Amino acid sequence: MTLNTQVQADHHAPPITRILAEFAVNHPSRGWGAAVDHEAHRTFANWVGCALGAARHETVESALSAVMLLDPSPQSCVIGRSERVDMASAALINGISSHTFDFDDTHLKTIIHPAGPVASATYALADFYKLSRRQVLDAMTLGIEVSCRVGNCIYPDHYDRGWHITGSTGMLGAAAACARLLGLNVDQTQMALGIAASQPVGVREQFGTMTKPFHPGAAAKAGLMSALLASRGFTASQRALEAPRGLIQTYSDKSDWREITEGLGERWEAGLNTYKPFACGIVAHPSIDGCAQLRRDRGFVGSEIERVTLRVHPLVLELMGKKTPRIGLEGKFSVFHAAAVGLLFGKAGIREFSDEIVQNPEVIALRDRVAAISDPSMREESADVTVELKSGVSHHVFVRHAVGSLEVPMSDDQLRQKFIDQAGPVLGLEAAEREWEGLITPCAAA
Amino acid sequence: MTLNTQVQADHHAPPITRILAEFAVNHPSRGWGAAVDHEAHRTFANWVGCALGAARHETVESALSAVMLLDPSPQSCVIGRSERVDMASAALINGISSHTFDFDDTHLKTIIHPAGPVASATYALADFYKLSRRQVLDAMTLGIEVSCRVGNCIYPDHYDRGWHITGSTGMLGAAAACARLLGLNVDQTQMALGIAASQPVGVREQFGTMTKPFHPGAAAKAGLMSALLASRGFTASQRALEAPRGLIQTYSDKSDWREITEGLGERWEAGLNTYKPFACGIVAHPSIDGCAQLRRDRGFVGSEIERVTLRVHPLVLELMGKKTPRIGLEGKFSVFHAAAVGLLFGKAGIREFSDEIVQNPEVIALRDRVAAISDPSMREESADVTVELKSGVSHHVFVRHAVGSLEVPMSDDQLRQKFIDQAGPVLGLEAAEREWEGLITPCAAA
Repeated sequence: MTLNTQVQADHHAPPITRILAEFAVNHPSRGWGAAVDHEAHRTFANWVGCALGAARHETVESALSAVMLLDPSPQSCVIGRSERVDMASAALINGISSHTFDFDDTHLKTIIHPAGPVASATYALADFYKLSRRQVLDAMTLGIEVSCRVGNCIYPDHYDRGWHITGSTGMLGAAAACARLLGLNVDQTQMALGIAASQPVGVREQFGTMTKPFHPGAAAKAGLMSALLASRGFTASQRALEAPRGLIQTYSDKSDWREITEGLGERWEAGLNTYKPFACGIVAHPSIDGCAQLRRDRGFVGSEIERVTLRVHPLVLELMGKKTPRIGLEGKFSVFHAAAVGLLFGKAGIREFSDEIVQNPEVIALRDRVAAISDPSMREESADVTVELKSGVSHHVFVRHAVGSLEVPMSDDQLRQKFIDQAGPVLGLEAAEREWEGLITPCAAA
Repeated sequence: MTLNTQVQADHHAPPITRILAEFAVNHPSRGWGAAVDHEAHRTFANWVGCALGAARHETVESALSAVMLLDPSPQSCVIGRSERVDMASAALINGISSHTFDFDDTHLKTIIHPAGPVASATYALADFYKLSRRQVLDAMTLGIEVSCRVGNCIYPDHYDRGWHITGSTGMLGAAAACARLLGLNVDQTQMALGIAASQPVGVREQFGTMTKPFHPGAAAKAGLMSALLASRGFTASQRALEAPRGLIQTYSDKSDWREITEGLGERWEAGLNTYKPFACGIVAHPSIDGCAQLRRDRGFVGSEIERVTLRVHPLVLELMGKKTPRIGLEGKFSVFHAAAVGLLFGKAGIREFSDEIVQNPEVIALRDRVAAISDPSMREESADVTVELKSGVSHHVFVRHAVGSLEVPMSDDQLRQKFIDQAGPVLGLEAAEREWEGLITPCAAA
């Protein structure tokens, strides 16, 4: 027992559970700057788009058909489908669909995908109780702040240990958001957070299976149920997060409490959210961005290309080194495929990682001419791309930060295009455009 | 024991997830000795009694009223009540009620309360699908074996870290049991275990709150849902339990795989179940037993007592060190209160941990005269009790093993009396007697 957490248990942690409860209850509606509020709009809109894009995926079909065995009451909407299910199950399913394509948002400091758990719980509850868009945006922003600050407190030890931090912090953000929406007082919200603290979801071994997107869904459901329980007088420890045998010290050897308390309500992690422009692992994004830039700026077509050379951080080949992917899912783990579609289509969305495109002869022909050099001197966020044409002309670009990073965020227009790409096939193009406008239009404080 | 699991990650663990799936699917009905099968009958009967005893407790009222907000379908029985709710919610509520009084069963090697998660999930599913008592007993026995063997694999590090091992292994046993009941094949059952592996429930900081009994309930629900998901094709890692970033290496620095594989299907942890004669944490049972023995054998009354001294294993004060409990629930975490009621009433059932008794002046007066000495040389299962009377006479007893231990198990008749004490007020005395007979009557193999 000598080296375990109890020996160094911190008995003097600040009252984190209480502090977060007070924050979630008392912080005023839209009590943050315009930039953070715009980011909240983008976060919610991007979450809706991702959930729509996967609404008919087999992962969602499977989960929904299991939920249907419970004969749920039609309380809340399953996004992009006609079914309605009870609030808790809606939180589960929408959380699953929003993360199915690994195409959602990322809080880069912790690799948390914050909307999956928090927006899914918020929306399910708000849909049933007919709450306003402003209430949703307020609750979601506060909930994301809770998840990401707890994430900052425990990252990286917690993640290194094996937890999928999105699901293992998400139930806290979801509980805070739902408590806010239900109008719980501080004591009740403290209980909601406490109940949620017993329900972390997800280990990293599940990556590559349906259980990965299950994590944000299950965290959303757990948080929502925790708030409902607290609203009915259910109790938990008042120090469920910070006590020596509370959640944080149990599942992480690092607990930097200042990451939670410092600047709470002033400095916003929720304002640091980013969105994936490409539907694959983030390490390939600089390469794809470089390829898409060359295509756009240099005006060549695929058949003119003799050879492509990527110089990348070693992690890229470690995570995405598949030379000859055969199906869409394998394409997501091939930087060669990713570069080829960047050059041929100028984008790398869900369609570009479908079986059809991965098996397309033109794509395969170009993919086979892509080489990648693992270079430890390259930074993870950068890539160096050289395209040699058959004509003998050579084009080169160095991407310091890919689009979608904090330094080069996706523009509203790029995010809109991503949304339309996902929502269009489900809603129809015109309805998708209208939906986007509705989601991105600024929403006044309550 | 290392500071960080990743440093010494075990990449060569046996295929535990697969092995347990094969076991849960292929082991024959009643494929164990008569003694183990009788223990299974006792386990299930004791679980029913505990759930009945708490059916009207505020913890259950609160949880059930939260579940009712979801407008659940009346699929399965809430034990001891007229309401019916969907299968998953029934697993939750019955798991909560069965553990509300901390009066259920214990696998002493790990301090797991196995029936709470496993029987609750099993019964909820079986009630809806109208499965036989034999199917329930088979599934429960196999599920308990899964929970307890995983518990053996990770105990004590996992528990020391802060996990409430009942809820953090229970979802695996519940998933295995439900997979068995649903007739899933080995591949599907492996997925059910995998999905469950992302949903451990509970930290020890919650002890003394409603969230403690929530743990077995939530684990039951998670396991049941995992089996339903697997039945509909939902996927998880095939090595979700044993991989370096699977559950076991993520939430425990100890992973002794042989505890899972050795003698599986031959030697039965499920046969080692024990039942609490006293309605509080097991670590106080030797002290209570000693106090009750002295009262019975020495014939003094409370007002004669000058001072009581307990010499106990350090864990007793760590878990039950509350000096001045104010309500019944807190009394359960006070070895001082437990000793006082043992001396005053000769028992420590549900009534002795009620608000009324915890606030009783005579009890308080005696409780304040109880001292406890933490002695690392004492074994956890033993206690040394000295009662000094005002007359100057001193009485002493050393309890090697308390009643309810493996060495001094509760007899069938004692277990029956415990059942009637709990079931009688809910069902009526005659119906309670009939129920007991039905539950304890041997059930032939299918």
